[in-house]
Amino acid sequence: MLCSCQSRSDNLLVQSALQTLGADVLFMLSSRWEQYKFKKDVGKFCSLYSDLVVAGGRNHNSLCQLTEGASVPVVNIASHKFAPLHALGVLMTLQEHFGRLNGLTLGWVGPMGKKLNTFIYLLPKVGIHLKYNSSPTPNFPASPLVLPAGKNFCKTFNTRIEACPDPLSTIAGVDVIGTSKHKKETQKLELHMFEGANKNWIFFHILPRWEGEVSEDVFNHQNSLVWTLHENIKYTLMAVVLRLLKTYRPTLVKPNFN
Amino acid sequence: MLCSCQSRSDNLLVQSALQTLGADVLFMLSSRWEQYKFKKDVGKFCSLYSDLVVAGGRNHNSLCQLTEGASVPVVNIASHKFAPLHALGVLMTLQEHFGRLNGLTLGWVGPMGKKLNTFIYLLPKVGIHLKYNSSPTPNFPASPLVLPAGKNFCKTFNTRIEACPDPLSTIAGVDVIGTSKHKKETQKLELHMFEGANKNWIFFHILPRWEGEVSEDVFNHQNSLVWTLHENIKYTLMAVVLRLLKTYRPTLVKPNFN
Amino acid sequence: MLCSCQSRSDNLLVQSALQTLGADVLFMLSSRWEQYKFKKDVGKFCSLYSDLVVAGGRNHNSLCQLTEGASVPVVNIASHKFAPLHALGVLMTLQEHFGRLNGLTLGWVGPMGKKLNTFIYLLPKVGIHLKYNSSPTPNFPASPLVLPAGKNFCKTFNTRIEACPDPLSTIAGVDVIGTSKHKKETQKLELHMFEGANKNWIFFHILPRWEGEVSEDVFNHQNSLVWTLHENIKYTLMAVVLRLLKTYRPTLVKPNFN
Repeated sequence: MLCSCQSRSDNLLVQSALQTLGADVLFMLSSRWEQYKFKKDVGKFCSLYSDLVVAGGRNHNSLCQLTEGASVPVVNIASHKFAPLHALGVLMTLQEHFGRLNGLTLGWVGPMGKKLNTFIYLLPKVGIHLKYNSSPTPNFPASPLVLPAGKNFCKTFNTRIEACPDPLSTIAGVDVIGTSKHKKETQKLELHMFEGANKNWIFFHILPRWEGEVSEDVFNHQNSLVWTLHENIKYTLMAVVLRLLKTYRPTLVKPNFN
Repeated sequence: MLCSCQSRSDNLLVQSALQTLGADVLFMLSSRWEQYKFKKDVGKFCSLYSDLVVAGGRNHNSLCQLTEGASVPVVNIASHKFAPLHALGVLMTLQEHFGRLNGLTLGWVGPMGKKLNTFIYLLPKVGIHLKYNSSPTPNFPASPLVLPAGKNFCKTFNTRIEACPDPLSTIAGVDVIGTSKHKKETQKLELHMFEGANKNWIFFHILPRWEGEVSEDVFNHQNSLVWTLHENIKYTLMAVVLRLLKTYRPTLVKPNFN
Repeated sequence: MLCSCQSRSDNLLVQSALQTLGADVLFMLSSRWEQYKFKKDVGKFCSLYSDLVVAGGRNHNSLCQLTEGASVPVVNIASHKFAPLHALGVLMTLQEHFGRLNGLTLGWVGPMGKKLNTFIYLLPKVGIHLKYNSSPTPNFPASPLVLPAGKNFCKTFNTRIEACPDPLSTIAGVDVIGTSKHKKETQKLELHMFEGANKNWIFFHILPRWEGEVSEDVFNHQNSLVWTLHENIKYTLMAVVLRLLKTYRPTLVKPNFN
């Protein structure tokens, strides 16, 4: 199994998940693989030496090209467009905590990037309503393709996505409040802001945290499931890997010297 | 098991020790973890994914904070204040060579840093007298807390710690001469300086070596136990890890979806 | 087992080969080990913690010094003078494809460096004629020692080595065309240039590739054995390691505390 993540904490998580499954973990340490012109070659090269690739990238398109060249399954640990495993970890945590997903409302007060994109794609399909307060940044622009697609899922699955003007209106009436690293002072989450949330609200943060996005009394609150979430992301990856390899059989070509 | 050392040679040693014990070794490769504000978070995060943490740091206090957040044992491979495993490796080597520790005299001609600090704390308790010739440097100041504590141990265990003005007076009458990387020309150890040492003196160097601290005829002398020491540091770490995990039971929480 | 390669793709290949054999792989990650003054010490230090060292280096002489200090086998994955494993991988690929080595002609259109040096040493001995079009570069000068030695092998084994003025004359009448990363516009291989080659020619490239050295229709041609070669280099390394360790017995010295 081969791994290349942009984030050090993701690297740790992936290594731990794969080793728990008994895999040998190889490293392509450079986070600069995307600068290489022949990205399909990278996928093909990795496939020679591994049974599964877990890769991250700055550019979602690079990952797609790598995958195109690969003959083994490729797991996207996080591109700058999507963070599917982190979002699946959130779903696992909610299912475990509430015993259901359908009918919950999640409020996202954080960057408009890969995590929000993934929520927009994923939450409507499992019956979760999404409210968000976010603003585009140079590095993490909201893909204009993502919101319309999410809205379409909403129609099919009878769920809502709502953009909110500020954190307070986002938190009003939600069951779950989530955030991740950002530097926006106006979006700092403090405990008094959670009064408008539903009773038994829970909080999560997709680590690592930065200094300004959440106060200590929220982060360490008994309703904060930060650490449970990050343990669950590991289990999510393990489940995804097992599923992908279920039908996969490695082929070992014997050299033929006759 | 998780590992982050400041020194490349320590990294190698730790990896080898843990793998010999059959552990999977994870890496948190960055030596910059101390720049992260929430050091307790780092400890907590690492605990999610490992059963033991071996970590090093520039700042001893960072390691203490990491340990405070961790729910698994943390081994200090070397902070800039203490280097306990290297010192224990020296004790193992002396016990093996002399068949005893009590009553030996060790002369340290080297930097006033983590290694000397550890000797000041450790040697008096096992009956070894310590002489040293050292001088403070900007990066490795002698902690003013360490010497008084060491002197107190001396009273309890009837041992001596003595600061010496130069290498020659340090070496006089000792059984063991030790040093480590430094750039002080005046402290260069040469074979003729060892005449004042006890017959059957032994020499050790805590690697890696720098160019100026010891001549080739000392380093490669038949009384030099440099390589034996570094093999022993590995065994010391293995023993420490086994001891720490003796009473430790990993807890695997099963997800509850009922 | 310990590994330190200059090239990231070599690192991956070595890790995969050693793990397939069931070895624990340690890393001495720095590619700067050659800057350390005491290279014999590096070999000795590595031998304390591993049963085999796979190392690469900028300077062939550094590797020789490391090997001199080592008490375990050292495999040269590639110095700037020789790349023995890559060349052995080529031989394995030719044997597999043609069913023989004797009497083949190989044309090298690429840098005058470690790969060409190794071919000059190796091919004459196994009955392969070598033609090359290459020119010295500041970083990869042809060692003046290598060509005369190769010519001597030619006499003994009745083979030919021929320097050619351009790619076209190099390709004329060969069975195999090989290249590797370079930036020489005049050496770019295109499909129409292969008309002068023997029918059933094959092509290989020692990865990674750069932009200019080969056109897509050659690289992806059905006669291109690029990927087979790189799988074979892994098998070659596995065979070399097994051979080296066949007679090697690790010695575990028990500490003696009697």
